[in-house]
Amino acid sequence: MSGSGADPPGFAGILETCVYYSRPKREEVERFYVETLGLSRVADWNDAFACRLPTGILLAFEREALDERPGPVAAHGSLGPGHVCLLAAEGAYEPWRRRLRDLGVEITQEASWPDHKRSFYFHDPAGNLLEIADQDIWPR
Amino acid sequence: MSGSGADPPGFAGILETCVYYSRPKREEVERFYVETLGLSRVADWNDAFACRLPTGILLAFEREALDERPGPVAAHGSLGPGHVCLLAAEGAYEPWRRRLRDLGVEITQEASWPDHKRSFYFHDPAGNLLEIADQDIWPR
Repeated sequence: MSGSGADPPGFAGILETCVYYSRPKREEVERFYVETLGLSRVADWNDAFACRLPTGILLAFEREALDERPGPVAAHGSLGPGHVCLLAAEGAYEPWRRRLRDLGVEITQEASWPDHKRSFYFHDPAGNLLEIADQDIWPR
Repeated sequence: MSGSGADPPGFAGILETCVYYSRPKREEVERFYVETLGLSRVADWNDAFACRLPTGILLAFEREALDERPGPVAAHGSLGPGHVCLLAAEGAYEPWRRRLRDLGVEITQEASWPDHKRSFYFHDPAGNLLEIADQDIWPR
């Protein structure tokens, strides 16, 4: 019997989320995630870096390096803006909005979601669309 | 005083992680995430769907719809393979490998990480590189 019809085994969560940047933007992008967003960098390579958040790892990869990476492990890299939404820590939504404004990061839109939940949008220096939400804005 | 020099406010985690697919792949991609990977779909649109995992939401967007989406909220969509790593539930790593093999999903590589941690790689029908890890394989 194949196990294909059985219930899927389940996941504990999403471990890695990726964004991509163009080579000349490397320093600017890394400064943005590490200094502006204050993420904790846990790994660093010529063509990528990784930051830890409480629920997983945000990886930023140089998209031009896609063809240079050996083997299937790193055979990825996309062109065009990706999207990641970060969940603000308790009470940190307004402070995030203030901090980004103070640092000159343009907030391109604010959105209202059911049950008075909110999020706002901005871009990283590579053009990826980032979002910070004050709560989990998705249905259970 | 601007708050820009102060400690960043902090995040609770990554709320949304995105992959992109090409329009003709929609049904196949959705079947893959919902049936093969057994993810729980919490939202569904013409050009996107969203699945909940224990730590956040995995969104799949049709990349051709990028130019058709109104406003900055959805102004994203990338070409080329993205990458997401999912963390297997406790004890579910081998069952996942078995299930995918049984369902004819090619496992393109297995990787060993420090401290006997493991992960394997495969592709979704849109060409995105997916990975399932048995543990958090990243430094603290």
